[in-house]
Amino acid sequence: MSTSSPLKTAEIVAVGSELLGSTRLDTNSLFISERLAGLGIELRTKVVVGDDRAQLAAVFRQALGRADLVVLTGGLGPTDDDLTRDVVADVLGLPLDLDEQIVARIERRFARRGLKMPDVNRRQALVPRGALVLENANGTAPGLLIDHDDRLIALLPGPPREVQPMIEALCEGPLRERAGTERLYKATLFVTGRSESHVEEVAQPIYSRLGRAVPPISTTILAVPGQVELHLSLRERDAARAQQMLDAAREELHEALGPDVFSIDGRSMEQLVGERLLTAGYTFAAAESCTGGLLTSRLTDVPGSSAYVRATIVAYDNDAKIALLGVPRELIEQHGAVSEPVAVAMAEGARARTGADVLVAITGIAGPGGGTPSKPVGTVVIAVLVPSEPAYVHTYSFIGGRALVKFQSTQAALDRVRRMLEHAPVRGRRAQ
Amino acid sequence: MSTSSPLKTAEIVAVGSELLGSTRLDTNSLFISERLAGLGIELRTKVVVGDDRAQLAAVFRQALGRADLVVLTGGLGPTDDDLTRDVVADVLGLPLDLDEQIVARIERRFARRGLKMPDVNRRQALVPRGALVLENANGTAPGLLIDHDDRLIALLPGPPREVQPMIEALCEGPLRERAGTERLYKATLFVTGRSESHVEEVAQPIYSRLGRAVPPISTTILAVPGQVELHLSLRERDAARAQQMLDAAREELHEALGPDVFSIDGRSMEQLVGERLLTAGYTFAAAESCTGGLLTSRLTDVPGSSAYVRATIVAYDNDAKIALLGVPRELIEQHGAVSEPVAVAMAEGARARTGADVLVAITGIAGPGGGTPSKPVGTVVIAVLVPSEPAYVHTYSFIGGRALVKFQSTQAALDRVRRMLEHAPVRGRRAQ
Repeated sequence: MSTSSPLKTAEIVAVGSELLGSTRLDTNSLFISERLAGLGIELRTKVVVGDDRAQLAAVFRQALGRADLVVLTGGLGPTDDDLTRDVVADVLGLPLDLDEQIVARIERRFARRGLKMPDVNRRQALVPRGALVLENANGTAPGLLIDHDDRLIALLPGPPREVQPMIEALCEGPLRERAGTERLYKATLFVTGRSESHVEEVAQPIYSRLGRAVPPISTTILAVPGQVELHLSLRERDAARAQQMLDAAREELHEALGPDVFSIDGRSMEQLVGERLLTAGYTFAAAESCTGGLLTSRLTDVPGSSAYVRATIVAYDNDAKIALLGVPRELIEQHGAVSEPVAVAMAEGARARTGADVLVAITGIAGPGGGTPSKPVGTVVIAVLVPSEPAYVHTYSFIGGRALVKFQSTQAALDRVRRMLEHAPVRGRRAQ
Repeated sequence: MSTSSPLKTAEIVAVGSELLGSTRLDTNSLFISERLAGLGIELRTKVVVGDDRAQLAAVFRQALGRADLVVLTGGLGPTDDDLTRDVVADVLGLPLDLDEQIVARIERRFARRGLKMPDVNRRQALVPRGALVLENANGTAPGLLIDHDDRLIALLPGPPREVQPMIEALCEGPLRERAGTERLYKATLFVTGRSESHVEEVAQPIYSRLGRAVPPISTTILAVPGQVELHLSLRERDAARAQQMLDAAREELHEALGPDVFSIDGRSMEQLVGERLLTAGYTFAAAESCTGGLLTSRLTDVPGSSAYVRATIVAYDNDAKIALLGVPRELIEQHGAVSEPVAVAMAEGARARTGADVLVAITGIAGPGGGTPSKPVGTVVIAVLVPSEPAYVHTYSFIGGRALVKFQSTQAALDRVRRMLEHAPVRGRRAQ
């Protein structure tokens, strides 16, 4: 196979009517995309098509027309609506031969469970002439790899635990041999506290220029709740050169966007905050109202977070704020529960009760009810206390539904902790 | 539009290079597929394509060739790689006109946050001539609906919270007018506390029979963390007949699966628990350790939950369990923090400190560290107190990673509350 032109582009065709309904997504493509990118093979298109002969044939023909490698997943089962093998052989004009070795393997698989192989399973032993048979350690249907007119076509089963080891084996073997010497390299910057358009305004002149570099660095901007992500990628033969170019590009964007950039290596906000707490040897506690525990749940998603998360008091009603956090009743009566004095008092109350070093308090109106003209839904007050710094307190206006207001509140609070700990002393992990 | 032939088939084209990588899936198609099915419009194909002009144009042309309705999502943003509007107009040969009303609407959106609209956002006000503009309540990019050569083309934004209300509006309005007379009817049962195979064993003989009814009822079983879902569906012209058949089918499955069925109308566990608390007039508090606030965060995702959620103490370390919940130090020393006596003491401590009626305590080992031979990772103890019932306490063994152990713990705890409140007195909402 080594004399053919290198594989540069790929298309995934996921076959199965259940993947067109409202409850199931094709997740194999995530894994396949990552492994192919590692070989410098770019995934151009993903298609999901039902168990329908004519439609599958049309989709497969189109895929052959636009990609060097077509990976089909699913539709290799033993039943009538498993059509992938038939349709691919038909479109390529290849006869199907029964492979007795595969029949024997499937029979043994059934025999191990004390069962006789049903006759329908013989279909799984049909092989388009000339195809390479790929062993399936976790299921009955073998995979198939067909080399046809300078295109490679892989037929893989649908279940993730069957397809994953087969893709690994393909990427170690036949696909690696056919891939070019170029590889895809990637870098990311995560930004918070700015809208997508505001990130774009600053970043666009830079990444337009990067896009004209040799080799070009391409940039994708992606807005998700609470953060804007810049994904840079570059195709190159020389790993050192690729890394150097990406590092320089990332640094330039980082400088332009300033401290709103919170992550330059894909780590999440909760991981970064956790690491800063660990480095400074600080413990953490929170007083949450409208976020209902989400802040602390996010922090404790990080393995090892028990080294710094001490406790949190979710004080959802006013009585709880008074009884559990010692917020003076008059303060709530005078300023309202969603106010800067109350947020600071909540943080101070949490500090007095937990003895933690770093404290966050969040009180706000997550909606849909509870808004007033002066404090509409989305009004959230965040207070942060860290050692040897003045207390931080700020009133935010978030937009979106209840879940989004909750999430953005936790993101803003965690980002504030991150910034306030930027210059914290390095004391190492504190003994408990 | 009413004189055209009915819409029978649809294709979704999700646009965005990020959807071809290894971290992100197009989830909009689940929701869109469901809503279209409700109108009897069958989703034939889903395609994901990157932010590339030529590829998007090719994919869009193919979609036009095989479906009555093409729904494109994403690529309507303000940046250079947002190409959907341009490419669709180009393929259909329609000029783009700047709509000053849309400009004014986007400017107002920025102004509400005290910001000036960046110039790049003007691109979002370009409208292919003749298109219907669909208002976007949750974002800047309006949607567009184009009627072209007996095909409908919908251009919708990418973020789920923006696309969902727009699809709702389309399905209530222009798409309903153009759809045929058969509709898809659905019913669901959510089950917890049983594995997928155990649900299958009980349900399979029933749903095989339902699949042979006229019209046939089709069933999909879907396992997600913490629950197994049965989705029933039926295609029929007569709404009353469809409803009657589905009700009977659901009832039969419900009887066979018994009290493990926690929802028969799609409501989530946190909604159901919230309603039982509200009906009984009970307040709620929790003492969370390994779940880190996730239980309370889930409960407070439900609008109106401030009527019953009072407070929660996340006591992540032993000192916090002692100081904030009054758990006797000796109890922890004698039995360990993950033990039934400590869980009960945590729940009692939460009751003493919050005065709530219903209490949950969760203490466990979420992993990956912290396991021992006698208490491996996944060991979780849950205690529940409700009025006039003996305390419930049980030690669970969950499998999966940290996030999955956290989630399953909250699911099991909420399900226990649901069951214990099944026969609680109906007192109505209690005055605060």
